[in-house]
Amino acid sequence: MDIAALEEIKRLKHRYLRCVDLKLWDEIGDALTADATAEYGTAVRGGPVLRTGRDAIVGFLRESLPPSIITAHSAQQPEIHLDGDTATGIWAFTDTVIATEHDSTMVRGAAFYEDRYERGADGRWRIRHTGFTRTYEYVVRLGDLPGFQLTADRWTRG
Amino acid sequence: MDIAALEEIKRLKHRYLRCVDLKLWDEIGDALTADATAEYGTAVRGGPVLRTGRDAIVGFLRESLPPSIITAHSAQQPEIHLDGDTATGIWAFTDTVIATEHDSTMVRGAAFYEDRYERGADGRWRIRHTGFTRTYEYVVRLGDLPGFQLTADRWTRG
Amino acid sequence: MDIAALEEIKRLKHRYLRCVDLKLWDEIGDALTADATAEYGTAVRGGPVLRTGRDAIVGFLRESLPPSIITAHSAQQPEIHLDGDTATGIWAFTDTVIATEHDSTMVRGAAFYEDRYERGADGRWRIRHTGFTRTYEYVVRLGDLPGFQLTADRWTRG
Repeated sequence: MDIAALEEIKRLKHRYLRCVDLKLWDEIGDALTADATAEYGTAVRGGPVLRTGRDAIVGFLRESLPPSIITAHSAQQPEIHLDGDTATGIWAFTDTVIATEHDSTMVRGAAFYEDRYERGADGRWRIRHTGFTRTYEYVVRLGDLPGFQLTADRWTRG
Repeated sequence: MDIAALEEIKRLKHRYLRCVDLKLWDEIGDALTADATAEYGTAVRGGPVLRTGRDAIVGFLRESLPPSIITAHSAQQPEIHLDGDTATGIWAFTDTVIATEHDSTMVRGAAFYEDRYERGADGRWRIRHTGFTRTYEYVVRLGDLPGFQLTADRWTRG
Repeated sequence: MDIAALEEIKRLKHRYLRCVDLKLWDEIGDALTADATAEYGTAVRGGPVLRTGRDAIVGFLRESLPPSIITAHSAQQPEIHLDGDTATGIWAFTDTVIATEHDSTMVRGAAFYEDRYERGADGRWRIRHTGFTRTYEYVVRLGDLPGFQLTADRWTRG
């Protein structure tokens, strides 16, 4: 068992999701191969979203996640299988997305990711494909929740 | 420190919980020893549930979790201690259970798992005992939540 | 890559958070260096809370988290970097805090931890600094949530 490779792939996924939640759009690209593909099965966006290529994926994330959209992505319980310089990974995923503008809403859901990874000529692992299938997803209108108060927001309050 | 054994036990737990959430009842049995015991301290079911033996545990899960019950189980923060071919594991656990039929409800909670594992003659780790103690658990009626909408459900919408 | 050190630091963090959620105030101190510092950026408490020294941190936790305050802390997605006998760690963090007395409230949030660790003369890793920056945090009044019921509470019901 190549434990170091497993650790590197886990850290890659962790870094990728941290870049998403911290909106580090200039850093996130290096976590993806140039020809990476992404498929997000988010029903509230009207069905699966597919993007091909690092630039298209980063562009989609940058455009979809302005400071008025707070996200917290959590990928856990990795089952990673190595095969030389490629690997597959299954992750249990939960996410919270809070849209703070207008009719403020919160989306919560769970999914299973099925990713593929590739080790480049530089010896570094990158995401070759990422995609998930929803277990569930729901929306609530926060303005209608009795006593709801957003007490911290990294993006609009500093 | 036998890092490979730790990784195998983590992956075992991850696989077991994935089988629960994906309702893979034909696959899940192999994660348990034949004489495994399970104790689920779920108050909404009226107190601790005990099952003895792989078949009884899988039968209980299959019966309790039809497609109208969506689950997302998350076990994190493992503290695993190895002792030859046995091991113990503590995990921080959170779960979401959505009952989509009738008076639709959502149960959310946290707990600490205290598991025991065993390495079989075939060299594979299996769960010998699993059980948890709740930190908290609550129920909400989804139909009464203003603006609530279930936008994805793996089991009843595809 | 010193995988054993990474595993030890992860387990240290897991143990520390378990001690918080289980209110094990006599055990938690050993997870911290004597000169440890902690910074909790919790807006509902009126801004960052800083504590210096193991005793001050443990005292703060003991005082802030009586049995009427249920907590579930989850630190995930570690990115740990080792440098000899010191290390840094970034963790994605989510927490749920339920205050069961009076106007019962629930606080939920996410954050990123930035920790520092130190390996002592006894060869054991301890937390030298822990602190987080909130991604978001919100409060809801549970008494106002239709159909809300707390069905398990480790501290007030056994």
